[in-house]
Amino acid sequence: MEPIVLVHGGAGDIPDSRVPLKIAGVKKAASLGYKILRNGGSVLDAVEEAVKSMEDDEAFNAGYGSVLNLDGEVEMDASIMIGANLNSGAVTVVKDIAHPITLARLVMEKTPHVLLAGVGANRFAKDQGVPTVPPGSLVSKYATEALEDFKEHGDNRTEIGDVGTVGAVAIDSKGRLAAATSTGGINGKMVGRSSDTSMIGSGTYADDDVGAVSTTGHGESIARYCLAHTIIYEIKNGSSANVATSKALKGMTAKLHNTAGAITISKSGGLGIDFTSRRMAWAYQIKDEIHFGIEHGQHTKEKAGN
Amino acid sequence: MEPIVLVHGGAGDIPDSRVPLKIAGVKKAASLGYKILRNGGSVLDAVEEAVKSMEDDEAFNAGYGSVLNLDGEVEMDASIMIGANLNSGAVTVVKDIAHPITLARLVMEKTPHVLLAGVGANRFAKDQGVPTVPPGSLVSKYATEALEDFKEHGDNRTEIGDVGTVGAVAIDSKGRLAAATSTGGINGKMVGRSSDTSMIGSGTYADDDVGAVSTTGHGESIARYCLAHTIIYEIKNGSSANVATSKALKGMTAKLHNTAGAITISKSGGLGIDFTSRRMAWAYQIKDEIHFGIEHGQHTKEKAGN
Repeated sequence: MEPIVLVHGGAGDIPDSRVPLKIAGVKKAASLGYKILRNGGSVLDAVEEAVKSMEDDEAFNAGYGSVLNLDGEVEMDASIMIGANLNSGAVTVVKDIAHPITLARLVMEKTPHVLLAGVGANRFAKDQGVPTVPPGSLVSKYATEALEDFKEHGDNRTEIGDVGTVGAVAIDSKGRLAAATSTGGINGKMVGRSSDTSMIGSGTYADDDVGAVSTTGHGESIARYCLAHTIIYEIKNGSSANVATSKALKGMTAKLHNTAGAITISKSGGLGIDFTSRRMAWAYQIKDEIHFGIEHGQHTKEKAGN
Repeated sequence: MEPIVLVHGGAGDIPDSRVPLKIAGVKKAASLGYKILRNGGSVLDAVEEAVKSMEDDEAFNAGYGSVLNLDGEVEMDASIMIGANLNSGAVTVVKDIAHPITLARLVMEKTPHVLLAGVGANRFAKDQGVPTVPPGSLVSKYATEALEDFKEHGDNRTEIGDVGTVGAVAIDSKGRLAAATSTGGINGKMVGRSSDTSMIGSGTYADDDVGAVSTTGHGESIARYCLAHTIIYEIKNGSSANVATSKALKGMTAKLHNTAGAITISKSGGLGIDFTSRRMAWAYQIKDEIHFGIEHGQHTKEKAGN
């Protein structure tokens, strides 16, 4: 099996001005994750590091640069899952930490639980020695403008700042799978709004017997459609990763009239990359070649940086 | 189609002393829900009222009588879903309200979101005029003893007080479906622990094209297995409600070594009632007959009270 780390940087109506930043960010994340696998790291390490890199990057709606809730605060969700044993960890509505995906992993590894919410999640972070960043320090200028824009025009679906959930799926040479997703949610959301990204089966799923999926897009629709698990079941029923991903996305958009995107790796190493939204940044590295795209039909290849 | 409201009162290692209370409670809830359908109410009203009745009943781990977190507090989760349009609402880690299921319905009906968590969920409750009960007033003597027992013996899986998530699924004469689930979670849980009950696809699912499901049992395993949606997909693949329910439960327990239960109604009105745990209280009414059970293989019928 050829090891691979496939990442996305969020599906949605990405404005032209944001395209170069998003492409640079997903290429960097895919390359980082791939290096971990090539150096003998686990698929879990690979997806965590890929997602962390995008959490640090203002170009994405996760970690620093997350969109804001109606109170002007960053409240973040993240989830991570191991395909070998279905072990899962997630956090929701967590504040003032740089890497929600790392906290999600700690929930999986250090507690008997799958999901911690709100102040309980922050208390756990403190107990685990996860550093707290000063209130407001995850708020970017861009996110502040996006909230102002939302408050003025009321539509959080087509304005700037709405998109950029990040995710990664990985497979190693032995067919082991993992998936991870992290988000700041939806611009102008209510305080306490929890997203599909915190729900195993909606935002994230991984099962070594089937495949691994990370989703992005209109979170409420993804949750109602149970999108990640729908893709898993389509593969289980005999579809390729590619067909399963497209079929589930088209089904969701036809039924719920909202858009989304997903990245999938099947247990046989097949890839699925698709979106019903206008754009979705994605990238993966195989050997010394980076593959990436953001437009429908785009699949660009270039030599990896170093 | 024969209208039906099928309820459960939680799967688990229910001690003998709690059996009569649980049976009385599920019979009452099923009967209440059925009356609503018979009087022309919606499936949504029916599942909400059935669940509210069990939230009020100390015999169950939902609303009053919920199990306690490690701080000795009640933190509750609930979710509700309409099969016609996949509309969904949920709350998690909510405190000091009598009926989390009603708040979940308000999230569905009054917000653009599916899930609200923690202080945000309580703030929304206040904005909606949902009464707050005094802190501690949902804490029962039984739950307090169960937490003490957990702190002393450390095992929250086989001691008293662990079981009693409640749920309901309903179908009306036109084949419309709804599902609802409510829980206090797991005894001795960490502060902020959110359960499968708040996750669409794990605790609750309803789709008029397939069926409706409410699950109960070891929440972390249910979430990792995406149990409700797995049952939905088994029906979609051609299984009866009965076979789909049993197959998914056996699959989950074989893979994750924890137990659960579920109630299911398929779009054709077929019923699925099964559990891999020791016991699960369930009941439904058809015409003037109440059907109920709590042991494996038990299916008792009696004339409905009035």
